[in-house]
This record gives sequence, C-alpha cells and structure tokens, in this order.
Amino acid sequence: MPTTPAFPPPKMGEPYLLTPGPLTTAYEVKQAMLKDWGSWDDDFRAMTRDLRARLLALLGPGGAGYDCVPLQGSGSYCVEAMLGSFVPKDGKVLVLSNGAYGLRAAATLDQIGRGRVLLDKGDYLPPRGDEVARILADDPAITHVLAIHCETSSGILNPVEEISEATYAAGRKLLIDSMSAFGAIPLEPDRIRYEAMVSSANKCIEGVPGFGFVIAKTAEIEAAKGNSHSLALDVHGQWATMEKTGQWRFTPPTHVVAAFIEALKMHQAEGGVAARGARYERNRDVMVAGMRALGFETLLDNRWLSPIIVTFFCPADPAFVFARFYDLMKQKGFIIYPGKLTVVDSFRVGCIGRMDEHVMARVVEAARASLAEMGVASAAPPAAALEERKKLAA
Amino acid sequence: MPTTPAFPPPKMGEPYLLTPGPLTTAYEVKQAMLKDWGSWDDDFRAMTRDLRARLLALLGPGGAGYDCVPLQGSGSYCVEAMLGSFVPKDGKVLVLSNGAYGLRAAATLDQIGRGRVLLDKGDYLPPRGDEVARILADDPAITHVLAIHCETSSGILNPVEEISEATYAAGRKLLIDSMSAFGAIPLEPDRIRYEAMVSSANKCIEGVPGFGFVIAKTAEIEAAKGNSHSLALDVHGQWATMEKTGQWRFTPPTHVVAAFIEALKMHQAEGGVAARGARYERNRDVMVAGMRALGFETLLDNRWLSPIIVTFFCPADPAFVFARFYDLMKQKGFIIYPGKLTVVDSFRVGCIGRMDEHVMARVVEAARASLAEMGVASAAPPAAALEERKKLAA
Repeated sequence: MPTTPAFPPPKMGEPYLLTPGPLTTAYEVKQAMLKDWGSWDDDFRAMTRDLRARLLALLGPGGAGYDCVPLQGSGSYCVEAMLGSFVPKDGKVLVLSNGAYGLRAAATLDQIGRGRVLLDKGDYLPPRGDEVARILADDPAITHVLAIHCETSSGILNPVEEISEATYAAGRKLLIDSMSAFGAIPLEPDRIRYEAMVSSANKCIEGVPGFGFVIAKTAEIEAAKGNSHSLALDVHGQWATMEKTGQWRFTPPTHVVAAFIEALKMHQAEGGVAARGARYERNRDVMVAGMRALGFETLLDNRWLSPIIVTFFCPADPAFVFARFYDLMKQKGFIIYPGKLTVVDSFRVGCIGRMDEHVMARVVEAARASLAEMGVASAAPPAAALEERKKLAA
Repeated sequence: MPTTPAFPPPKMGEPYLLTPGPLTTAYEVKQAMLKDWGSWDDDFRAMTRDLRARLLALLGPGGAGYDCVPLQGSGSYCVEAMLGSFVPKDGKVLVLSNGAYGLRAAATLDQIGRGRVLLDKGDYLPPRGDEVARILADDPAITHVLAIHCETSSGILNPVEEISEATYAAGRKLLIDSMSAFGAIPLEPDRIRYEAMVSSANKCIEGVPGFGFVIAKTAEIEAAKGNSHSLALDVHGQWATMEKTGQWRFTPPTHVVAAFIEALKMHQAEGGVAARGARYERNRDVMVAGMRALGFETLLDNRWLSPIIVTFFCPADPAFVFARFYDLMKQKGFIIYPGKLTVVDSFRVGCIGRMDEHVMARVVEAARASLAEMGVASAAPPAAALEERKKLAA
C-alpha cells in the first residue's frame, strides 16, 4: 500500500500556486478556517497572544527586546505602517530599490509626507554596503535606511547584512521589508541589526492572506506614539491596545488568524526557519536545474538566486507566447507568475508554499511539455537578455 | 424523519456569535475557503468582478452612477479610506456622533489632518435633521457630513433619511458609515442621497472578516485622485488599478473573498436586502420580547431599535455580574457582547448572522437559566438607567 505523501496535492483540485503569495497552503491550514470566532472572546485573545509569541520566537534569543504587532491588511499596508510609525515627520529615508517593492516604498513615503532619497539599482542589481556607506556619509539628514530583503520582482536576495553594517556604522537606523523572506531566511537580531521589519501571513509561514505583522524593537514602538499619518496603520496604536486588552484595535480577520496559527505550528513541526529554508532551497535547486536543462536561463547568477522565486528569460523563439505558456502550465496544474523586468521579457516561478522537490520536478516536466505543445524548439533567451545579465558581473 | 433545518447550528460546535461582526456564518461560506487562489489569475479576477457587481446590485436602479471598491483591512480601514479620499485637504466634516464609531471617525479625521466639527449626542441620542440643518447654516466651511447608519455602540438606527435631506438642502455632501447595516437595511440612492458609503464583509452580508468596501459615486471616485493621505487606503488608487487590470492593487485576502461571494449568493437566494432585514427583525422581535418578559429593559424605545444589535441594561440585583453572565451564556452556546454605555452598565445582544428566531428563543432561555444559576431574582435595571432612558423622550 502506498503511504500518504508528506506533501499531498491540493485537495480541492486547484492548481499549485508557483507565486510569491498567495501561495499553496496545507489543507490543515485552510481547515482551521471552518469555525467562527468572537474577536472579543478570551479564546481568540489567547490565539492572538500565541501568534505574537510564536512569531517572536523565530527571531532567536536576540529577539528579547522586540515585540510583534500583527496588522490587518496586505503586506504593503504593513510597509506603510512601519514607515509612517517609525520615521518621524522630519525624518528622511534612504530607500534601496532594485525592483517594484523598493519603488513602492518610495511612493509610499512620498504619499505619506516623509522625506526620502532613492538608490535605484534598476530591475535587479543589488544595493551594496559600500554604496550605502557613501550615500549616508554624503547626506547627514538621512535618518533611516529601508532595505528589501528578497525583492520578488527579480527574486534577488539582497545583501541585508552588509547594508545593516553600513547603516549602523553611520549611526542610522535600518528598516527591513522581509515580506517574502521571513520564516525561511534567518533574520536574527543577534546576527543582523535592525529596528523593525515587516512580513505577511501568506509568505514563507504559509498562511492565507489577510494580515501582516511588524516586528520591531519595543523601545521603537513606544517611541512611535503619535507619529503615524494614519489611524488604521498606526503600529503604536495597535500595539498599545493589544498590550492593554489582548485584542486587535479593529475587527481582526479571525479565520485568517486561526489558519496562520495552524501554519505556525506546521512551520515549527517542520523544523523552523532552517528547515523551511532548506526545503525551499531544494525546491529552487531542482526546479532551476531542470529548467536550465530545458534551455531556460535565469536572470541571476546562483550567488543572488533566492529560494523564494526565480526569474527566467522568455525564450527568443517566436513560437513562445507567455500568455499561452501560462495557460498550458495552468492546465497542467501549475500557476506561474509573469515577469517584472522592464528591459526584456521574463517570467517567474515561485519556490515557496506547501510543496517539495518532487512537485518541482513535475513543474519542469510541465514546462517541457508546454514548450513542445507550443512548438518552441529552443528555450534559449534573446541575445539582449544575456547582455543585460552581464551587468551583474560588471 | 426530521428535515434538515434551514439554519443548522454551527457545524464545528462553536458558540453562536451574538455580536455585530465577526458573526456566525454559514458553513458553506467557510467551506469556500478550502481552496487556494492565485490573485493574478483570471479566475480570481472574475471573482472580483462578480463581487463588485453583486454589491452594486444591492443599491437598486439608483446605483447606476456608483461604483464599488473593495479594500483590504477591517471596516475602520474603509472609513479612514473614505474620509481621506473624498474629503479634500481643505475640507471640513460635520461628524454626527452618538457612540464609539462616530467618535472614532472624528479621531480619524484628526489623525489624517482633515478639519471637522463634532455633534456629540452622547451614548445614544439620535442626531436629527433639524440639528444638522442649523449647524450647516451656521458654518459655511463645512463641506461634508458623516453619519453612522446603525451605531452599534447602542444599537440605534440613526435617521439617515432626514440627515441626508438636511445635508443636501444646505448644499453639502453626505458620507455614510453603514458598516453594520448595509445588506439588511436599504440604502438605495433612489430614496436617500449620498456620495459614498462603507461597509464590511462580515456584517449583514454574513461573510468572514478580512476586507470592507466603499461604494461611491463614480464621479466622486474619479475626483479623488491624489487626495488620499495614504497609499494603501487610497480609494482612487485601488479603483484605478481594478478598472485597468481587474486586480486588487496589493495582495487580496483571496479566501475571504471566495467566502464573501458565497455569502452574497446566499444573500440573494434568501431574497436580498428585504428578506435579510426581515429575518433580522424577527430575530430582534423574538429576542427582545423574551428578554423583556424576563424583566430586562432595553436602552432604546422600539422606534429606535435596530434589527442589528440591542442594548440591555444590566440588572440592578447585586447577584448579577456581567463576566459571570457572559461565561454562563457562552457555556450554553452563545457569545454575547459587553455594553459601551458610559453612564450605566449594559450589555448587547446581536441579531445578525446565520441564525433565525428559533435560535433567538434559545438565547432567551439561556439568559433565563443563567440568571437562575447566578441567583438573580429580578432582571430589572437600576433607577439611574430608567432616568437615563427618559432623555430619549425629552
């Protein structure tokens, strides 16, 4: 008799989501949503306490001086809440951008009336520690640096360690958007210094979407009182109410919270951040090796490839049409993600969610079959793509 | 053989939520969350289109010039989004308050830097049309009036029709917080004029919490471009992206959206706003009559009692302790809600959610048994409560 696989396929027959969230979650996580909870009731307050404690535990022993503030809304809501709460009205942020999420943070600062300068590295080039050091030395008005941990526009894992070192060497404060990385890639204050970070329920913890969370030094949260441009997105306001009453200030997404607690338990059972990251790395390695064997090329060198999501160049072959490739992959049970590069055509394949390397091998097989159905002879990218990639080595 | 009741009890054995949201939802609604959806995929875009169209249809034929913008977060996020998007930076709002939600709207305006004056009617007295007319006549700087449709602090159904008439007679614009009323109490532009209103997924439509929605005149949304104090809470920004791409700007709570569409279908199958409202009225009538027969007294006269939630005075008998009453009711399968009156002790019982008058009869029986267990001889309120209530008649 066959044993039940550790990662059974989606029970309701839906396709795997090879996307950077929402992603494929365990059936047990979704089943946790089959109950209604009163948000004022003790049972739910206990769930909120559990959720905050479990998230803080992911920081390791260095997390002692930090607190966790879950916040309703999407991850971008949490980024805005972090910026509006921790950057004072006369503050100035150095935004390190190499993709859509860096640019969105800059747009957020503009809209909420906080000063900022932008280091725009284009579609994927990593912002480096020495660049940060130079900019900070030249502009003493900068109070904060914002780094994107994994920029899912390209899938690059940015060098937050050297960015942190440069930031604190210059006496400034670091804020991190670790949306798509936290829970799979360590972000332990013992090893990397930062004031605050944000992530969301439906990324590497593998919950369903509906809220995110800010993890910040408790002293920073306390000092943020009255700072926010918004009532709903006020980290201090949410924190103060939770500390006092155990409740969220406004109606929480109770079902999504219940699902997230189940996801946190499964994260722990799997072996925590290290094991989760290792699974995603195996997912990436099997998928990238298979796709490269088909002739696809990745945008990034191995050194910069995150275990979160990988960007591939679209084949130069005119028989390749992304919309058709997307549909063929979906028919085979896999939803992939369009690319975000501005210079050349690309697509992305996520490595996160409730799946393992056996699923990823099937993704590669589906890509092979889809290319064959489209009559694509070669998956090799156009010369312009390879030219583009040379910039990384330069 | 017994037939399946139309309103089966919660399948997972959880208590009924006699609270104004989160509330008890149908099992079918929660079951719709057992699948993962890609937020970029066509299937989910179709769901978003369906959701918007179904909500607009609740406005009747007068809704033709309106559009619907769902927004991640709780209902209070939507209130802030409506205020920040539609009230210009040099605008001024007359906030009509008779409870916590009116006061929260005023606090929101203060925090986002919009001018406001407050008509504070205390815990429950209704703001009347003639008062609004007087204030508007005296202060030409006021551009908007904000009304709370059902103020769940007390359960009062505010007279939005006469408020609307006074507002437009004075050439101003009306914004309505219809959080706990929309879907059960008509708000048809043919019969009551307003520029924009907000409500949430987990109120009278009986979805689960995780997002809300703004319904506004399309011309108002178009004119709101660049107005918002926030990126995430920008109604125009969300609308423009949805119109262009069919997608939410940031990750939507996909499972909550799927649940809400199921809830909208059940709302339609029940007979729409009129039938939903009629069921809640029966719930209220059976529950209030039963509680009065036990000796409890309502804060409000019948004229002002909403079919959403009802405030009862706590009995004067010293054997009555609310925390104990709450626990006893919970043991019997019913979660009630604490009161919000500042002058006398009270509690609230909600009438909305997936339940009918047979359930409400059991609520009354549970209250009777709980009083007996506590040794409460009389449910009559203290004299101060009845004195308080006289204010309504004055």
